[in-house]
Amino acid sequence: MQKINFEQTIKLIHKEINVKLVKTNKELDRFLISAVPIIPKLGNYFFKNRGKQLRPVICLLSSKMINKNYSQLSSDIDMSAAIEFIHGATLLHDDVIDEGKLRRGQKSINTIWNNKFSVLFGDFLFSKSFQLMTKANSLNAMAALSQVSSKISEGEFLQLTHENNIHITERKYLEIISLKTAELFAAAMKIPAILTGKNLNKTKSLYKLGLYFGIIFQVMDDYLDYFGKRVTGKKQGKDFYEGKITLPIILLLKKSNNTEINFIKKIFNKHKRLKNDYLEIMKLMRKYKINEDVKNFCNKYNKKSLKILKLFKGYQKDLFINLLVSSINRTY
Amino acid sequence: MQKINFEQTIKLIHKEINVKLVKTNKELDRFLISAVPIIPKLGNYFFKNRGKQLRPVICLLSSKMINKNYSQLSSDIDMSAAIEFIHGATLLHDDVIDEGKLRRGQKSINTIWNNKFSVLFGDFLFSKSFQLMTKANSLNAMAALSQVSSKISEGEFLQLTHENNIHITERKYLEIISLKTAELFAAAMKIPAILTGKNLNKTKSLYKLGLYFGIIFQVMDDYLDYFGKRVTGKKQGKDFYEGKITLPIILLLKKSNNTEINFIKKIFNKHKRLKNDYLEIMKLMRKYKINEDVKNFCNKYNKKSLKILKLFKGYQKDLFINLLVSSINRTY
Repeated sequence: MQKINFEQTIKLIHKEINVKLVKTNKELDRFLISAVPIIPKLGNYFFKNRGKQLRPVICLLSSKMINKNYSQLSSDIDMSAAIEFIHGATLLHDDVIDEGKLRRGQKSINTIWNNKFSVLFGDFLFSKSFQLMTKANSLNAMAALSQVSSKISEGEFLQLTHENNIHITERKYLEIISLKTAELFAAAMKIPAILTGKNLNKTKSLYKLGLYFGIIFQVMDDYLDYFGKRVTGKKQGKDFYEGKITLPIILLLKKSNNTEINFIKKIFNKHKRLKNDYLEIMKLMRKYKINEDVKNFCNKYNKKSLKILKLFKGYQKDLFINLLVSSINRTY
Repeated sequence: MQKINFEQTIKLIHKEINVKLVKTNKELDRFLISAVPIIPKLGNYFFKNRGKQLRPVICLLSSKMINKNYSQLSSDIDMSAAIEFIHGATLLHDDVIDEGKLRRGQKSINTIWNNKFSVLFGDFLFSKSFQLMTKANSLNAMAALSQVSSKISEGEFLQLTHENNIHITERKYLEIISLKTAELFAAAMKIPAILTGKNLNKTKSLYKLGLYFGIIFQVMDDYLDYFGKRVTGKKQGKDFYEGKITLPIILLLKKSNNTEINFIKKIFNKHKRLKNDYLEIMKLMRKYKINEDVKNFCNKYNKKSLKILKLFKGYQKDLFINLLVSSINRTY
């Protein structure tokens, strides 16, 4: 069986919702206008490379999948722009928290300017996202998205308080990535249903689809930190050097013997981890074939998602299937 | 004529809107509940000393002044809680930006924990403020408050980019304090009118009242940095040591001779200002009676405000008059 290519799938999806994605990006540009000169300057820099724009993209694809009058609808554009701004705000504040030096293949704003600029520009994007939501004119959609926004903070806090905690459970890890990443995908999927008053079952199904996709997406991100061939963006081993305990490490600890467990603990208890520590951990990863375990973990969520997708139909559904399947093979 | 006392006026106002202020505080407590243990912990610490709560308080007082059915209304409680959370979020992020060590008479969160906690807890409060707004169920009020939220970021950016800029004009200073401080007061005043569908004239008058009060409030804050006898909170000379050019300095530069101007410039161009620099500046402040100039500046806005207040009536109006007049005499 030929592997479905992630990059190719993203291209097809972009093509499918292109008209509205262009409008979404125009909205983003319009909301970055300000009489304070530094704001459009930071905006141009930060949004120069827009990347995959996965969150607004799946919002629009979900909208097209479930709405017959998709082309007449405009509130989904406002909401997808709001979602992209929330995502941007969290990236900016993440870079302050993690002292991130690179973002989307270029120096982060805190590197070029400083932390103050990242904090303030994040706040600016947050507030603009709420202006976009009020423009969409749906209190229910707004309630859903503002809830996610506080869930993201909760997820970040959980992550922060479990930093270097080698005893973190798979369950707690799942809670953290759901809050900090997957809930925003879930909201992106379900918001088109809220905007157009679809029934609760459909809304919930879309929520779950987004949540599962978000979980897979974050797990694969954590996977690539150890097993990826990074082309752009994050430096490989970034999570490792920061002492973040992610799924590959959790699964590795499960299979390791006592000597190995103590060795791993020692490494994560160190104030700073070095290249050699990373190579040692990679040896263990290969010994226990942790890459396969992580993929199996993702496949579980994939199966659940594909089952839910049976409730939907059309070309957009096929694209979602390809997105899910290929996201497990993505290399960047 | 006996001076009206600011502290006494605040007490009378608190008494006048006490029932709803208690409810506002209950809302705040309820929205600080989280399954993530660090959040209520930070919440309890940050809101231990609630302070004057001026922003929610003037929102509620404005509501009582203009609404006959004040006691039946509940959306003003949601909105005043939302306003307090926005204010809290900006304080938390301010402390990161200004490296503030003290807040409301106790160590700031970035001092006890670190900057990461201040950034994330600020984000959490921001998102909770938007949840409170959706609860208030008024898209117009929400639009007004989310606009203010981005104005605050703009004001902070303007301030940041004019730091140590000795050539800043009075006009630019006014723009900065309007955006970063006064607009939130203005929103607090006008939101009760928006919630109850008052006519545009009344709404605009309340907006202006809040704006002028906010300007006076910030100018007096900047005044107290040089002329205050600080009891709690900020350390005296904080703005000075941070190199912030505020109204007292702008007015001082206007009156100084060339030698003095060069001396002041040299001091603000220094990487670090010392106690002796502060004392030298204070000599000039006294020489040119800058304290009187600042008070005259405030009195101008006071007169404008008192003129607008003629449109309103009742005991709440009297309290607003006392608040305005006494805020020029406040010592903390």
